[in-house]
Amino acid sequence: MSVNAQQIERLKALGTATIHEAQGQKGALDAGLKPLDPTLRMAGPALTVDIRPSDNLMIQYALTKAKPGDVLVVDAKGFLEAGPWGDLLTLAAQHIGLAGLVVNGSVRDGNAIIDMGFPVFCRGLSIKGTNKNQPGQVNVPVFIGGVQINPGDIVVGDRDGLVVVASNEVDNVIAKSTEREEKEERIRIGIKDGKTMVELLNLGDTLRRFGIQ
Amino acid sequence: MSVNAQQIERLKALGTATIHEAQGQKGALDAGLKPLDPTLRMAGPALTVDIRPSDNLMIQYALTKAKPGDVLVVDAKGFLEAGPWGDLLTLAAQHIGLAGLVVNGSVRDGNAIIDMGFPVFCRGLSIKGTNKNQPGQVNVPVFIGGVQINPGDIVVGDRDGLVVVASNEVDNVIAKSTEREEKEERIRIGIKDGKTMVELLNLGDTLRRFGIQ
Amino acid sequence: MSVNAQQIERLKALGTATIHEAQGQKGALDAGLKPLDPTLRMAGPALTVDIRPSDNLMIQYALTKAKPGDVLVVDAKGFLEAGPWGDLLTLAAQHIGLAGLVVNGSVRDGNAIIDMGFPVFCRGLSIKGTNKNQPGQVNVPVFIGGVQINPGDIVVGDRDGLVVVASNEVDNVIAKSTEREEKEERIRIGIKDGKTMVELLNLGDTLRRFGIQ
Amino acid sequence: MSVNAQQIERLKALGTATIHEAQGQKGALDAGLKPLDPTLRMAGPALTVDIRPSDNLMIQYALTKAKPGDVLVVDAKGFLEAGPWGDLLTLAAQHIGLAGLVVNGSVRDGNAIIDMGFPVFCRGLSIKGTNKNQPGQVNVPVFIGGVQINPGDIVVGDRDGLVVVASNEVDNVIAKSTEREEKEERIRIGIKDGKTMVELLNLGDTLRRFGIQ
Amino acid sequence: MSVNAQQIERLKALGTATIHEAQGQKGALDAGLKPLDPTLRMAGPALTVDIRPSDNLMIQYALTKAKPGDVLVVDAKGFLEAGPWGDLLTLAAQHIGLAGLVVNGSVRDGNAIIDMGFPVFCRGLSIKGTNKNQPGQVNVPVFIGGVQINPGDIVVGDRDGLVVVASNEVDNVIAKSTEREEKEERIRIGIKDGKTMVELLNLGDTLRRFGIQ
Amino acid sequence: MSVNAQQIERLKALGTATIHEAQGQKGALDAGLKPLDPTLRMAGPALTVDIRPSDNLMIQYALTKAKPGDVLVVDAKGFLEAGPWGDLLTLAAQHIGLAGLVVNGSVRDGNAIIDMGFPVFCRGLSIKGTNKNQPGQVNVPVFIGGVQINPGDIVVGDRDGLVVVASNEVDNVIAKSTEREEKEERIRIGIKDGKTMVELLNLGDTLRRFGIQ
Repeated sequence: MSVNAQQIERLKALGTATIHEAQGQKGALDAGLKPLDPTLRMAGPALTVDIRPSDNLMIQYALTKAKPGDVLVVDAKGFLEAGPWGDLLTLAAQHIGLAGLVVNGSVRDGNAIIDMGFPVFCRGLSIKGTNKNQPGQVNVPVFIGGVQINPGDIVVGDRDGLVVVASNEVDNVIAKSTEREEKEERIRIGIKDGKTMVELLNLGDTLRRFGIQ
Repeated sequence: MSVNAQQIERLKALGTATIHEAQGQKGALDAGLKPLDPTLRMAGPALTVDIRPSDNLMIQYALTKAKPGDVLVVDAKGFLEAGPWGDLLTLAAQHIGLAGLVVNGSVRDGNAIIDMGFPVFCRGLSIKGTNKNQPGQVNVPVFIGGVQINPGDIVVGDRDGLVVVASNEVDNVIAKSTEREEKEERIRIGIKDGKTMVELLNLGDTLRRFGIQ
Repeated sequence: MSVNAQQIERLKALGTATIHEAQGQKGALDAGLKPLDPTLRMAGPALTVDIRPSDNLMIQYALTKAKPGDVLVVDAKGFLEAGPWGDLLTLAAQHIGLAGLVVNGSVRDGNAIIDMGFPVFCRGLSIKGTNKNQPGQVNVPVFIGGVQINPGDIVVGDRDGLVVVASNEVDNVIAKSTEREEKEERIRIGIKDGKTMVELLNLGDTLRRFGIQ
Repeated sequence: MSVNAQQIERLKALGTATIHEAQGQKGALDAGLKPLDPTLRMAGPALTVDIRPSDNLMIQYALTKAKPGDVLVVDAKGFLEAGPWGDLLTLAAQHIGLAGLVVNGSVRDGNAIIDMGFPVFCRGLSIKGTNKNQPGQVNVPVFIGGVQINPGDIVVGDRDGLVVVASNEVDNVIAKSTEREEKEERIRIGIKDGKTMVELLNLGDTLRRFGIQ
Repeated sequence: MSVNAQQIERLKALGTATIHEAQGQKGALDAGLKPLDPTLRMAGPALTVDIRPSDNLMIQYALTKAKPGDVLVVDAKGFLEAGPWGDLLTLAAQHIGLAGLVVNGSVRDGNAIIDMGFPVFCRGLSIKGTNKNQPGQVNVPVFIGGVQINPGDIVVGDRDGLVVVASNEVDNVIAKSTEREEKEERIRIGIKDGKTMVELLNLGDTLRRFGIQ
Repeated sequence: MSVNAQQIERLKALGTATIHEAQGQKGALDAGLKPLDPTLRMAGPALTVDIRPSDNLMIQYALTKAKPGDVLVVDAKGFLEAGPWGDLLTLAAQHIGLAGLVVNGSVRDGNAIIDMGFPVFCRGLSIKGTNKNQPGQVNVPVFIGGVQINPGDIVVGDRDGLVVVASNEVDNVIAKSTEREEKEERIRIGIKDGKTMVELLNLGDTLRRFGIQ
C-alpha cells in the first residue's frame, strides 16, 4: 500500500479536479480551503494532527514524527482568528522536507511563507498567535472540509482546492485519471472539429426527455 | 437596440464603477461575484441559463445557442460546493468565441481557465463535479447578485465586479459615462491644483447643516 | 509621544505578526480585513472617521484634516455592498501624502488603486457608489475588527493583516520585537542545526504532563 | 388586476410553499428572510421602498402613501447592523391598517412588535438606530432576496418564508394551488392506505433508468 | 450490535451534551444543524441518503427501505435554498414510524411539520421545491456537520444539536454517561454546599502554574 | 459611580433600544449576540473574562471573584464550535446570584439553562465541550461585538440584543431615556390622533430638499 515518488508526482500533475472525477466524485474538501500561493502544487501522504483552536503545542510535537514528503494535515476546528503556523514552523518543515501543509484554520507570516515557496492550504490569514498549553492527537483520522483524512492518505492540492486519495486506491485512481485525460483529449479534438458538447457527450436523449431540442 | 462591437469595447474601457454611477447607481451585482483573474476585462450581451445546483446539462445545451461575443450568464443558485464549468467547457466557449462567463456559483480547473485567458466571474472554486440530469431554461430573465439580467443585456466585468446595462440604454450610458469621466478629469486637475474634495464637490453647505466646519 | 519617521519605517519592516506577538498578543484586527494589493506594506498614525454605511461625506471632510504620513481609518460598519472610496479619493490622498487607508467595508476602482500603488486594507470590492448626506465624526475612537483605534495610534499593515500600536508604546514594541527577532534567529540556527521545535522551545515538560512522549 | 380581500385570505391560508410550487417554483425569497413571530401569517399588495442602509427617512415618507392592507416592502440592502423599524413605526402602521412588513435588513424593538401582533419579516434584530438624512424611492421595483418585487405584487409570508405573486396571476395561482392541494390530499390518502411515495409519484421509471430497484 | 428500544430511550433522556462528553468529546455535528422545534428530542439508528442539492428523488426511494424507529439522515450538501422535505414526506415518515429526520440543508412546510410533532434537524427553512431527476445513494457513509455517519449509527438530537454514537459503543456510552451524571450530581451538591468550581474540579494546580491565585 | 439596584431595574425596564438611542446611538453589540430565551431581560455590572476558544479554565476562576448581581461577560473569540458554559456552571452562577451571562461564542445544555431561567446571551449552541488548560484574564477590558466592555460597565440585554452603559453615565442615560419615552408617548398620541410620522418628526424640510413631496 506504500505509494512511491513517481505516483506522487503523477497525482500532482493530474490535478485535483481530474482525480476527484476519476475516483467517482469523492474526496474533495470544501471550497473554503485555499492555497496561500495558488501557483504551487502539492501531493504527499498525510501526517494528521488534531488540535484545539488557538494552540499549536501538538503541531510542534507532530513535526518530531514527520518524514520527508509528508503533508502535515492540521485540524484547527475552522477557527479563523489565530495563526498556529508561521515562518519558523515553515523553516522547520522545509528542513525536514515536508511536502506541504493543510490547516483547517488560518496561518500567519503569509509573506514569508510565500517567499519560502512552501505549499500551504488554509482558510485565511491571521496574525494572532497561539499558546502551547493544549493536548491533542497525532496520526488519528481527522474530519476536515467535509471528508475524513486518515494518516497515510494521499493529499493533493492546487489552485482549485484539495482532494484526498486512499493510499490503496492510488494505482486505480491514476489509471482512471489517465483514461479520463484520454477521453478529455478526444473531446478537445471534437471541439476543435466543430462538434458541440451535446454531441460529444451524447446528451440528446436526456434533453429530448425534458422536451428540449 | 442592437449593440455594436465599438460600443462593447467602449463599455469595457469605461469600467464597472463608472458605468454604475453613470446609469444612476443601478445594475451592480453583489460583491461576492469576483473575477477568477482580476486582470481581465469582459463585456458582451448576456446569454442566460437557469440551472439547478450541481448539474450542468443546460450549460451544454446553451452553448449550442451561443454566438461569438456572448457572455454566458449561469444561475447556479449560489451553490459553492460544485463546479459546473471547467477547462473543456472553456475550450468549447473559446472555439465559439464567447466573451466570458458569469456563474452564480463555483467553477473548477481554475489554473487551466486562467492559462487559457478566458474571463470568468464566479463566487468560488470547487473541484466537485456535476451531473447531467436536470432540466432548466435558456434565455429567460435570471436574478443573480441582486439584479435581474435579461437575455441581451450587456454585462460588463472587471476587478471591481459586474454591472449590467440594458441594451437600449447603452448609448445613453456611454454618453453619461463620458460626461462623468470629463467631470472626474476636472476634479483630478483640481486636486493637483491643491483644492480639497469638499471644495471641488461643493460639500460646504451640507457640512454646515450638520454643524461641521 | 510623537512617533518619528524612522520608527514608522522600523514598524513597517518588522511586520504585523512580529509586532502583535511582541506587544503581548494584542492589537490585531480580524482576518476579514485584507490588503487590496498584498505586496504593499503600510504604517502611520491613524486619522479616524466614523461614517454611516453607504455615505462618504465625512471622508471628504476628514481629508481636509489629514497630514502627510497619516493612515485614514474609516469605520463603514462592515457594510460590503458600497464602495465609499475610489480612484479620485486615492488621488487626493496621494496629493496630501497619506500613508494608506483602512476601511471597515468595501472600496471601488480596485484596478486604479492598485495601479496608483496606494495601500488599501478593506473587506471587499464593490462598484456601488455612495451618497454625501450623512453626518459622522472625525478623530474619535473607532472600533474596527475587534479592536479600538484611537486617533494617533500607529496602524501597521501587510499581507497578514493589520495591527495597532499605541503611540506611547512604540519604543517598547520595537525593542521587544527586536528581541523577538533575535530569539527567532537563534531558533532558525537551531533548526538548521537539526534540533526539533520541541527542544528549541522547551516543550518537553508540557508534553509529558499530558502523557505525550 | 385588482386583488380582493377574499383572494388575499385564500393566499394566506394556502401558504408559501404551496403557492411557490403552484406557480412553477418561482417567486420565493431567500431563506435568510424570516418571520419575527413564526406563528403569524401575512398577505397583501406590496408598497415598496428603496432606502440606504442606516437611514429610515423614506420609510416615514412611504407611510404617507400607504393604504389599509398593504405590505410595506423595504430594501435596506441587507445591512444587519441597524434597525430602521421599531415600535413607533409599528403603531403607525397598525393605525393605517398595514398587513405587515418585509425588510431586507434588521428591525429593533422585537419584544414590542411581537406583543403588538404585527407581522414582520426581516434578516435579524439590531438595536442600533438610524438617521433621517438620505433620499430614496417609493413604489419602484425592488430586488430583495433574489426576486424582483413590483408595487402591487402580492407578498405572502409564513414560518417557511416569503413568496411573491404578480397581481394578474393571483386567479391562476389560486386555481393551481387548489388543484395541488387536491392532488396532495389524494397522496395523503394513498400514504394512509400504505402506498409508498415512489408508487404515488410514479418514480419507478426514473429510478430504473439509474439502475435503482 | 443491535440497539434495543430501552437503550434508545436512555440515550434520548441523557441528552447530546452529556453523551458527547462521555464518549470522549467526539461525534458532535456542527452548530449550524438545529432542531425545527427545539422542545423535541430524537434518537434512533441512521438510515443514510446521499442526494444532490435541489433534488429529492432518492429520499422518496430511501423511505421504501425505512423501518420503524429509524432516523433518516440526508446529505443535501449544505444547500440552503431548497427544501427537499415537506409535509407529505412527514406524513409518509410518520406512517412508517420514523423517529426523525436530519437534513444537511433546508426543509419546507415548517408550520405543518411542527404541528405534526415530527422531529426535524436542519440548517434552515426554504419554500423552494425540488426536482426528482438525480440519482444518489442509500445506506452509505455520509459526512455531515464534520462527522461521518454510518448506516446504523445511533443519532441523538435535542435543543443543543446532534451527536452520533456507533452502535457497538452504545453500552459503553450509556455506562460512561451515567457515571458522568453521578459525578455531576456530586458537583451539584458541592455547589449547593457553597464550594467553588475551582475546588470541585481541583483546578488549583493548573491556575498556580499560570501564576493565578 | 456605584450603581444601585433601583437603577439596574430601571435600565432593565427601559430596554436596550431606548437606552442605545438615549445615550447617542452607542454601546450596542452586534446583531449576532442573541438571548437563549428571548423572553428574559437582564441587567448588571460586568465581570469580564478573556479566554481562549475551547477552554473554560478562566471561567471557573472568574466565578470565585463574582458578586451577586454581576453579569459575567466572556470573550471566547467568537468561536462557535464549543460550549464553554453549561448546566453546572449555570447552577454555580445562580448559587452566587449572578444576573446573567454574555459569551462571545456558544453554550451547551440549552434546555437545562432555559428551564433554570438564567439569562444567557450568546452566538449559538454547541454540545462540544472544552478543556481546562489555558490561562486568561479576569476583569480586564474586553472587545465583544464591536464595543469595549470594561469591568463594572452596566450590561443590559433583551430580545433585541445587548447594550453597554458606563457606570458613571447611568444617571444621565436614565434621564435621557425617560425624556425619550415621554417624547415617544407624545408621538404615540399623535399617531392615534391621525398625524403622520412625517408631521410628528418634522421631516418635511428634509424631504423637500430632496425634491420629495
